[in-house]
Amino acid sequence: MTGKITRSVEPEVLECPFEQLSLCTPNDLFYVRNHFPPPEIDINTWSLSVEGTVAKPLKLSFEDILTMPKRAVPATLECAGNSRTFLIPAVKGVQWDLGGISNAEWTGVSLADVMERAGVDPSTVDLIFEGGDEGEAPGEIRPPGLIHFSRSVPMSKALDKDVLLAYEMNGERLTPAHGFPLRLIVPGWYAVASVKWLKRILAIDKQFQGYWQTVDYSFWVDNAGVPECKPITEMLVKSQMAYPQAHEKVPANSLYKVAGAAWSGSGKIVKVEVSTDGGESWKLAEITTERKLGVWSLWHYEWHTPKEPGDRVLLSRATDDKGNIQPPAHDIGHMTYMINFCLPIPVQVQ
Amino acid sequence: MTGKITRSVEPEVLECPFEQLSLCTPNDLFYVRNHFPPPEIDINTWSLSVEGTVAKPLKLSFEDILTMPKRAVPATLECAGNSRTFLIPAVKGVQWDLGGISNAEWTGVSLADVMERAGVDPSTVDLIFEGGDEGEAPGEIRPPGLIHFSRSVPMSKALDKDVLLAYEMNGERLTPAHGFPLRLIVPGWYAVASVKWLKRILAIDKQFQGYWQTVDYSFWVDNAGVPECKPITEMLVKSQMAYPQAHEKVPANSLYKVAGAAWSGSGKIVKVEVSTDGGESWKLAEITTERKLGVWSLWHYEWHTPKEPGDRVLLSRATDDKGNIQPPAHDIGHMTYMINFCLPIPVQVQ
Repeated sequence: MTGKITRSVEPEVLECPFEQLSLCTPNDLFYVRNHFPPPEIDINTWSLSVEGTVAKPLKLSFEDILTMPKRAVPATLECAGNSRTFLIPAVKGVQWDLGGISNAEWTGVSLADVMERAGVDPSTVDLIFEGGDEGEAPGEIRPPGLIHFSRSVPMSKALDKDVLLAYEMNGERLTPAHGFPLRLIVPGWYAVASVKWLKRILAIDKQFQGYWQTVDYSFWVDNAGVPECKPITEMLVKSQMAYPQAHEKVPANSLYKVAGAAWSGSGKIVKVEVSTDGGESWKLAEITTERKLGVWSLWHYEWHTPKEPGDRVLLSRATDDKGNIQPPAHDIGHMTYMINFCLPIPVQVQ
Repeated sequence: MTGKITRSVEPEVLECPFEQLSLCTPNDLFYVRNHFPPPEIDINTWSLSVEGTVAKPLKLSFEDILTMPKRAVPATLECAGNSRTFLIPAVKGVQWDLGGISNAEWTGVSLADVMERAGVDPSTVDLIFEGGDEGEAPGEIRPPGLIHFSRSVPMSKALDKDVLLAYEMNGERLTPAHGFPLRLIVPGWYAVASVKWLKRILAIDKQFQGYWQTVDYSFWVDNAGVPECKPITEMLVKSQMAYPQAHEKVPANSLYKVAGAAWSGSGKIVKVEVSTDGGESWKLAEITTERKLGVWSLWHYEWHTPKEPGDRVLLSRATDDKGNIQPPAHDIGHMTYMINFCLPIPVQVQ
């Protein structure tokens, strides 16, 4: 068994070994994508502020949050750049293979409960979530000076009961790498929305135009012929193969259990197909776990491997109940994010 | 007399020789900042489309536009990156000295008249103006494929009678370099808003997030401690010296007429001051032309030059009737745009 794969030391970026797939990723294998170093937190003085267009601004201690009604929600977090190594030609950014994704059960309080206490003004459009981490944004197009990581969620999504202010993952207190003491969890959305080390919620009456949703973590859509920039939000439908791994040697003329996970941020997974001939033909895989929006389902397929040795390319393809299906190629409007095409896994039958 | 200064051949970027300052810049000296090559236009088949959230989509021929009520509006156009060579350290982008600015009288039809014909829906937030030019946007963060230059104006500004669809500058038909046959003119705003080779107006019910107002031609403001990205719009208050020019040799112990222009996109110019000692002391300059929002005023100051030879640094500083005053240093939140600090002009008294 291997541990996590280091993709960057500063900031800390650690990839999950995807071949050790299980329904709940153990906390010590859960991937890490930080933008700045985790802040030093003294839990006795720490507080969460709720400000902006609210009737009653709040300042909640950790104790205050622990005494509120508790809610547990399973959610798969996928980095918006997961599988980036599959892009040809290679692009800049964290070089994720398959493990920029993990799944956990998160426990905390519903954001909706906290916002109800604060009394959100009807003019509110977005809630900005600000982390306690701090640093200089990367790149040439960036705000000046030191800034906190911040991201917004529109009110239409924020009041979903499953959007959590989480203090536990898989029944354990969050560690500093995962956002101690409090992390926003936005099920179904790429993990960039799930802000760590939460210290402030700022309600505003317009759409937030922050660095991590305009310059970075954004993509292009066509609006009547005009390209428009949008923040990355919902996870696209996708499946990945945990095994075989790329370049694995597979025995000829035998049964091999191909297995993986499939998920979507816009619907439940209804179908996973596997191709063992580079996409020429597709067979149904069996989905073995519950199907829930924003949570991966595990699947497997019994492959009768060829009698003759040779190179093969395996692919998997997921479909959700909204009719979304994994595409054959990357959408270049998504730039180096939202990589959900059918990923080719070359193997050697021998 | 010199002609324009070439800053880039492809795309065409030509600087106005600012030392030849006059109230109306002659058309052949008016600066040019294109992003893509001017499109080939056949005026007999050309048309302007008005689409989107309108009751009655329009397709107007050039003839249709010429028959509408005519309006003439003076407007100074300043490139949002004008004076970029004054930034220390040097930055990327067009290396404008003082001449990324010119002034002209524009003639055409009020945008408001055209939009009244189309019947703008009350849900409309932004009008997108699309040029007929086409190319690949520069940089890594960009929409895929070939796109048109496009920019938006919110309805709150768009219905100002002085916002023009212009077909003449200084009484002459627009040339291809200046947007023939039709150019949007947004008085008071940086020239990026004044889209050339206009071919389509698209009304939309939200804020436009186009490439040239998010990734490029945008800047950072502070929103309760959180930086937010905004499109560049109004010209900041600014003055420039046409003469002396930088490193000019100025005769000692004589009268020298320091002269320049001052403008603001948010108010009328009420004061221009000149310093001949690097900013230690300031004297009032005389403003000699009409003061109008978005149009430069000419000013001059009689300088009794020092008896002794030596190096001097001259500065000018404008104030508008909204109380805006040129700052002593560049605001780094503006990145490489909106450069309106008091520009130092070193001269040698001899």
